[in-house]
Amino acid sequence: MDFIGANILSVSQFERADIERVFNVADAMTPYAQRDKVTRVLEGAILGNMFMEPSTRTRLSFGAAFNLLGGTVRETVGITASAMAKGESLYDTARVLSGYSDVVCMRHPKEGSVAEFAAASRVPVVNGGDGANEHPTQALLDLYTIRKELAGNSRTLDDFRIAMIGDLKHGRTVHSLCKLLCLFDKVQITLVSPPELAMPEAIVEKLRAVGHEVTVTDQLETSIAHVDIVYSTRIQEERFSSQDEANRYRGRFRLNRAIFTQYAQPNTVIMHPLPRDSRAEANELDTDLNEHPSLAIFRQTDNGLLVRMALFAMLLGVESQVEKYSREVNWFSRRNRI
Amino acid sequence: MDFIGANILSVSQFERADIERVFNVADAMTPYAQRDKVTRVLEGAILGNMFMEPSTRTRLSFGAAFNLLGGTVRETVGITASAMAKGESLYDTARVLSGYSDVVCMRHPKEGSVAEFAAASRVPVVNGGDGANEHPTQALLDLYTIRKELAGNSRTLDDFRIAMIGDLKHGRTVHSLCKLLCLFDKVQITLVSPPELAMPEAIVEKLRAVGHEVTVTDQLETSIAHVDIVYSTRIQEERFSSQDEANRYRGRFRLNRAIFTQYAQPNTVIMHPLPRDSRAEANELDTDLNEHPSLAIFRQTDNGLLVRMALFAMLLGVESQVEKYSREVNWFSRRNRI
Amino acid sequence: MDFIGANILSVSQFERADIERVFNVADAMTPYAQRDKVTRVLEGAILGNMFMEPSTRTRLSFGAAFNLLGGTVRETVGITASAMAKGESLYDTARVLSGYSDVVCMRHPKEGSVAEFAAASRVPVVNGGDGANEHPTQALLDLYTIRKELAGNSRTLDDFRIAMIGDLKHGRTVHSLCKLLCLFDKVQITLVSPPELAMPEAIVEKLRAVGHEVTVTDQLETSIAHVDIVYSTRIQEERFSSQDEANRYRGRFRLNRAIFTQYAQPNTVIMHPLPRDSRAEANELDTDLNEHPSLAIFRQTDNGLLVRMALFAMLLGVESQVEKYSREVNWFSRRNRI
Repeated sequence: MDFIGANILSVSQFERADIERVFNVADAMTPYAQRDKVTRVLEGAILGNMFMEPSTRTRLSFGAAFNLLGGTVRETVGITASAMAKGESLYDTARVLSGYSDVVCMRHPKEGSVAEFAAASRVPVVNGGDGANEHPTQALLDLYTIRKELAGNSRTLDDFRIAMIGDLKHGRTVHSLCKLLCLFDKVQITLVSPPELAMPEAIVEKLRAVGHEVTVTDQLETSIAHVDIVYSTRIQEERFSSQDEANRYRGRFRLNRAIFTQYAQPNTVIMHPLPRDSRAEANELDTDLNEHPSLAIFRQTDNGLLVRMALFAMLLGVESQVEKYSREVNWFSRRNRI
Repeated sequence: MDFIGANILSVSQFERADIERVFNVADAMTPYAQRDKVTRVLEGAILGNMFMEPSTRTRLSFGAAFNLLGGTVRETVGITASAMAKGESLYDTARVLSGYSDVVCMRHPKEGSVAEFAAASRVPVVNGGDGANEHPTQALLDLYTIRKELAGNSRTLDDFRIAMIGDLKHGRTVHSLCKLLCLFDKVQITLVSPPELAMPEAIVEKLRAVGHEVTVTDQLETSIAHVDIVYSTRIQEERFSSQDEANRYRGRFRLNRAIFTQYAQPNTVIMHPLPRDSRAEANELDTDLNEHPSLAIFRQTDNGLLVRMALFAMLLGVESQVEKYSREVNWFSRRNRI
Repeated sequence: MDFIGANILSVSQFERADIERVFNVADAMTPYAQRDKVTRVLEGAILGNMFMEPSTRTRLSFGAAFNLLGGTVRETVGITASAMAKGESLYDTARVLSGYSDVVCMRHPKEGSVAEFAAASRVPVVNGGDGANEHPTQALLDLYTIRKELAGNSRTLDDFRIAMIGDLKHGRTVHSLCKLLCLFDKVQITLVSPPELAMPEAIVEKLRAVGHEVTVTDQLETSIAHVDIVYSTRIQEERFSSQDEANRYRGRFRLNRAIFTQYAQPNTVIMHPLPRDSRAEANELDTDLNEHPSLAIFRQTDNGLLVRMALFAMLLGVESQVEKYSREVNWFSRRNRI
């Protein structure tokens, strides 16, 4: 695809080559995210960061990524009640607000709303999550993290093993990740969930259709024994018919240091889309793993900056000029953090 | 008037020469708003964007205009509940907050509050709307749009015809626009409204006193037949004594493509202060005109950026240095959009 | 202490030399706060301005201070309801959000929360107020203001007289200020409050232990007669057992122009942490003093910018480079305001 001026609405729009380009640009963003250098390549550019429903971490990540390229951010949080109450259409909102921005990131509670906004916008639009539908930059940062963590273990996206654990029925992130995995070869995927929360059959079929080996199970311990990546997700207890039923799965899908040490390989990598539920009664990914080197969940969010920087640079066509407008800095830096 | 360090509180403060200066500076801002160039003339300057009631579009427009000059924005949305609850006066608020800014833009639900704030502020204050009172930058951008659209038809602000349609009694924008029109010559004004929602008599008299030709009517179709500008506004149905009464006017004040094509000149320009009510039962300016070249409503909001950039540059005395601190950019730009 | 990469959590962490260093850097920030010059020393750096409870003035002050050094600000206001509702821990929040920032300023309603956040953060954290506990930058700006105002009267922090008035029991600011005063010599402190709202005994003892002369009284007029600084605070009427009881103290702790002129020295300086209650029934610091040269309350908030700029520069290790990345500006400036 041609990134310049494009919208980023769905993982379905990417071919393998597109993703590789994004990841290569993301790699090149590292010194800027680490504060070895700053760039002003997007000095004067404005991101319209439109969050029609709150999402602090995603909003801040998009905003910070744009800032790291030298751009500025104008922001709105929550439905713009006054205009909506007066009957303003999403079309009008898009036509007006896109006039104040060079690129828009939008989160909207209603499925399809971001695409509708993008159709009327005069600048590129990045989907920051539209209801249960898509959150493509989360999927990209997950895949980018897998690629990077695998490289440390001398493996690649074309030959690795992953276990996805938890509520695979409702989890937007695992659905999108599976779609992206279809662009690569020889992935062995173990889907671990209670049967009631299984991955939708259509996605499983798609994975198998491209030749991936898919195992469906409800056993956590055996599933993590021979994988490179464990991708844990939150059990959405509120979806069960009763708390009693929910309680049946609790213990089995809780990954903690004891289980990890006993069953997993030492260099297996643990991921989670966050937020994780750290309350004692849930705790699907135990805090006793917080200092474990395998825990990649904060490397994931750090990588989100790199991926979003890459996308912004490519949508505005400046990825080759980032270096030209840079300077080194010697202030207290974030080096060694990503 | 001397713009340096001044407050922008009311359209009444402008003489004709002031407006012409603002518009000339606004013209010069075009390459920056179009992204042919960026400037850092206001690098390091801070706009205090104080919205004591929400107004997403106006807030973002002021903020983006300041960013386009290289400045940064600090912002607050909603009444600052904690301090107000503790009994803080607007005087104290102004003394403190103006210390954090180089210029303040304020919207406040209460008439006169922005002027009260400005009296205590130590930096210039721009009125972003104070209740039913004033919203001077909206009036300026409307007039600037008229001037620009007329130029395309080889007419000027000193010789043109305008029809204002809708709720002319309560519409803050049409009141302010009429006041500004009194500074120019030979304007033919047709005021189209139900009698109950007529333009206040004092404003009509003022228009006639300066020699303008004013026609008052409740006929939409004939009114748009020979004008250069149609300025549509929202019928504020909630002000009618009953829904039945409101319904009587609905059809007649709905401008759509069929009516426009049948009655108006092809080069007549359609304006609206926005938001417009796009719900089927209201729809005073039909969405079937969305792609019509006569529809200038989004050019209006784009022009708002130019006018606000001009004001900020003039209040801080940098309008002649914008070019000096500029550089060209070749990233995906907004060219051809304004 | 070593400021580079440090957290600013409590006034207790400072030694006298630390404070003197901060104040010297704050002095050097004056031309930037006054807009004689702008600096881009922190261009590309990001402040995460995390206000888990609203505080407009403090939030804007931190943000503006960072902007004045050339940095950008990403911000959140209010508890991040969605993530908290899903059970996210403060540890996770800190790990994630600190990845988007170079320094974090946090206000949190719960005592100790900012320290908890700082323990998990990967960047320096500044406490912007954690419940009834600490608000160290307020204490620093108060002390910095005293030092500056005393200099005008040829006195120093090692030999001056101060009266603190009002609710000394609950006032977080006076507690912190007293702790800082213990680092200096020969301060004469008069504590003026109703007995029910007296300064905690532990603080009084600490002041006496370092050799300061402490007088406890409930007489306003005589207390302000021979002091250099009057530090007024809000009487928190809601804490009294009855309104009748509260009313007994009202008149006596109201400082106005008549009382000030009759009892105080002309060059006595009046301070207040703000907000002050300007409603007629409270009005502990009368608005008839607004234009009095002794009233330093807005110089206090202006000084807050300088102190916060100093801290940010020191935490990131750039205080010696501010000048190098500066340029002069000749736009409408804030000169003569601080």
